[in-house]
Amino acid sequence: MISAVVTGNVWSTRRVDGLPSGAFLELEIPATGARMIAFDVLGVGLGEHVLVAQGSVASHWFTGPPPPVDALIIGSIDAGSTGSAPGSEGGPPG
Amino acid sequence: MISAVVTGNVWSTRRVDGLPSGAFLELEIPATGARMIAFDVLGVGLGEHVLVAQGSVASHWFTGPPPPVDALIIGSIDAGSTGSAPGSEGGPPG
Amino acid sequence: MISAVVTGNVWSTRRVDGLPSGAFLELEIPATGARMIAFDVLGVGLGEHVLVAQGSVASHWFTGPPPPVDALIIGSIDAGSTGSAPGSEGGPPG
Amino acid sequence: MISAVVTGNVWSTRRVDGLPSGAFLELEIPATGARMIAFDVLGVGLGEHVLVAQGSVASHWFTGPPPPVDALIIGSIDAGSTGSAPGSEGGPPG
Amino acid sequence: MISAVVTGNVWSTRRVDGLPSGAFLELEIPATGARMIAFDVLGVGLGEHVLVAQGSVASHWFTGPPPPVDALIIGSIDAGSTGSAPGSEGGPPG
Repeated sequence: MISAVVTGNVWSTRRVDGLPSGAFLELEIPATGARMIAFDVLGVGLGEHVLVAQGSVASHWFTGPPPPVDALIIGSIDAGSTGSAPGSEGGPPG
Repeated sequence: MISAVVTGNVWSTRRVDGLPSGAFLELEIPATGARMIAFDVLGVGLGEHVLVAQGSVASHWFTGPPPPVDALIIGSIDAGSTGSAPGSEGGPPG
Repeated sequence: MISAVVTGNVWSTRRVDGLPSGAFLELEIPATGARMIAFDVLGVGLGEHVLVAQGSVASHWFTGPPPPVDALIIGSIDAGSTGSAPGSEGGPPG
Repeated sequence: MISAVVTGNVWSTRRVDGLPSGAFLELEIPATGARMIAFDVLGVGLGEHVLVAQGSVASHWFTGPPPPVDALIIGSIDAGSTGSAPGSEGGPPG
Repeated sequence: MISAVVTGNVWSTRRVDGLPSGAFLELEIPATGARMIAFDVLGVGLGEHVLVAQGSVASHWFTGPPPPVDALIIGSIDAGSTGSAPGSEGGPPG
């Protein structure tokens, strides 16, 4: 997984069939400045630190036919996490 | 997913069996200048900003036996999107 | 997918079971100079521009048990293609 | 697989359903300084050298419905390993 | 696939269940100097040039439940190969 920060929304009106309910969000990976787009079902907000799973596992999380989604936000990172989240001084388990 | 701009067509007359109806399009990722080729079933045009899913999820979108396609254009990005599309001032949901 | 140029053969006499009929070819990606090895069932030649699918979709193209092949040449790119092939002035559909 | 060093914990209280028991750990790849997050079921500790499998194979290691986890710590690297672990003078098989 | 040179062994005594018989070997990709770890069932040796398949196809080569292995040495590259192996003057098919 990677940790990233939500930087924007991506709207797509003309799209293929079979995409699930949720939002396409633009993310930035702070360490490198690289950007990617992930699917969100949690309703996270701009500036939030999130945990992202990539590849076919993102698609197979959904029930029913696997949608053409290759990146899924699987969690919002708690502020107290040690690691790549802000305010790193250790924290309680989730 | 990544966002990219359509920069050209790729024609292949001699090809393996099992490829679906649609077009191979050359894309450029604006942030890095990297190029890739994705399959298009939407009929997008040159210069259009598109959303691309990569890996086996691209192949499994198709009905029938999964074709050897590892990148699929899943949507055309609306002009008003915040994020990596042009004219970024926020926009209505798709 | 990516487009690449065939630069050599790779022979492997001692190999695992289950590899299909065909050839391992060394490819170069012109834009970056990066090299990779893909499986060829079309009989393409040195210097030819080819279209390559990567990942499990390459393996699942084969009938029978999926072989441990992670890159497949799915087509030879026509000379008249716009995009990353030589002689770019547009061309007829394949 | 890659070898990496455990550098922190990542806590996520608000998360999608279907994540297994275990911990999200932040890892650093010593050769490049790159960071990633992997799932741990072994209970490894800070500073430990670990072996990580990436992609859908990480998810399919779990019994039951495959969780949206794209990186799994599959082992702790023994101190005597030749290769990328510390104290490289060869060692007994595991 | 990629070609790489065997540079060491990686021993892991504490590891997850379900790993097959064989060895974890450290490899170096000569062109870039990058290192990775692949699973070996052929018994290749230090300094040997090998062909490596990555991703889920490595796991699905094994019979039984697919193990959490994301890179498999699928062959030893013959010395006479054109391409990225040493002594490049062309060679007989494998």
